[in-house]
Amino acid sequence: MSKALGEKQWIIPDGYIPEVSSGDLVSHESICVLNCSSEEAKLSITIYFEDREPISNIQYTVPGRRTKHIRTSSLHRDEEYLPVGVPYAIQVESNIPVVVQYSRLDSTQSENALMSTMAYPITM
Amino acid sequence: MSKALGEKQWIIPDGYIPEVSSGDLVSHESICVLNCSSEEAKLSITIYFEDREPISNIQYTVPGRRTKHIRTSSLHRDEEYLPVGVPYAIQVESNIPVVVQYSRLDSTQSENALMSTMAYPITM
Amino acid sequence: MSKALGEKQWIIPDGYIPEVSSGDLVSHESICVLNCSSEEAKLSITIYFEDREPISNIQYTVPGRRTKHIRTSSLHRDEEYLPVGVPYAIQVESNIPVVVQYSRLDSTQSENALMSTMAYPITM
Amino acid sequence: MSKALGEKQWIIPDGYIPEVSSGDLVSHESICVLNCSSEEAKLSITIYFEDREPISNIQYTVPGRRTKHIRTSSLHRDEEYLPVGVPYAIQVESNIPVVVQYSRLDSTQSENALMSTMAYPITM
Repeated sequence: MSKALGEKQWIIPDGYIPEVSSGDLVSHESICVLNCSSEEAKLSITIYFEDREPISNIQYTVPGRRTKHIRTSSLHRDEEYLPVGVPYAIQVESNIPVVVQYSRLDSTQSENALMSTMAYPITM
Repeated sequence: MSKALGEKQWIIPDGYIPEVSSGDLVSHESICVLNCSSEEAKLSITIYFEDREPISNIQYTVPGRRTKHIRTSSLHRDEEYLPVGVPYAIQVESNIPVVVQYSRLDSTQSENALMSTMAYPITM
Repeated sequence: MSKALGEKQWIIPDGYIPEVSSGDLVSHESICVLNCSSEEAKLSITIYFEDREPISNIQYTVPGRRTKHIRTSSLHRDEEYLPVGVPYAIQVESNIPVVVQYSRLDSTQSENALMSTMAYPITM
Repeated sequence: MSKALGEKQWIIPDGYIPEVSSGDLVSHESICVLNCSSEEAKLSITIYFEDREPISNIQYTVPGRRTKHIRTSSLHRDEEYLPVGVPYAIQVESNIPVVVQYSRLDSTQSENALMSTMAYPITM
């Protein structure tokens, strides 16, 4: 059995899916999760906005000893997907410790730009 | 009631508003704040410079369970806005715990460049 | 004797070696390790994937009071190198405390893009 | 009197001054330091390499309640400046707590690329 590593709660204040892409690469952002444990990690993701109620409890599963690089554009609760071109923030909760990194590729203009940061861990 | 998460004080040493923009995107930087609590977060922002006294106590409010992606070019104390093309540093203080991330988009040259990092939390 | 600084275990969830390069710079990513101690640091690196078993126990040595900027494309276990164009995650374990930063240069399109973040430290 | 905030020791494993610049912006990297205290902060900077002895004890002063965005190309010990095009790592020690962020602008190709990360704090 491999031990779970990291924290159960992570925060990313700067979420944004660019509206435009150009060139060979599509603008997107990813929540990259590593589950070092042998057990499955069950994630619950909440999306906060500037001027409306959050979308909460979006479910996602990361199998044991696997990583998932989750495109935020794929996240949805029932029929509701994340809007593009709108600032938001992301909270990732997990039933076991995991590690979360956030990256964005922006190809609005003809060359791509990248940014990445470890999410902020909430220690219990 | 949702619980406040994060810290009450955050530091960003590398603040800089590029003087020039080109292409479709305007050069700017953002302080992205997430307030997970049901209560309003009252921020007080201080700007430190290389060779003059700080501008302190710039006020900003983030409503409960909301995020705000604050463009630093919009911050001002009375008539004093942040200067462009000048290195500075940012301190964000909040009456309740929040999480703060800093991002910059630089479109000085014809393609944009991005950088982002979580602000540094001061734990009490 | 110089003291070891940092942590013995570090996590980077967002690993990815771009498939394409253009212009003068080759797309690559680096695990940058600093060993402040006078002693040698013996690293053991594990690579996690989305849909297959991890590659574990890739060995690497950082001499005392030296840094190594390790291109992930150079890492291999026996004949097995890291695949390009596939999302993965990286775990770095060391016998003594070190500090680990992750950076990627993507030159898929004609201009290069950069991202960097400190790896996430697992404190014991 | 304003209180010192942050830590007395910070590590940046991925230091690199690009050899080439193009366009309007010069490739460079900066160590951005914020000293929130009313007292002067006296820094001692050590540069570690891959295959030679470190350059240690480069002195730098940050006045009270000021930030300094220090271009690494300006750092030197006696006549010895930091080499360009060579991987290195940076250790910043301060007599009082400060906060340190690292940023690089690479304009090797005709458009610029940016990366930034908070340095890694060594807590005592």
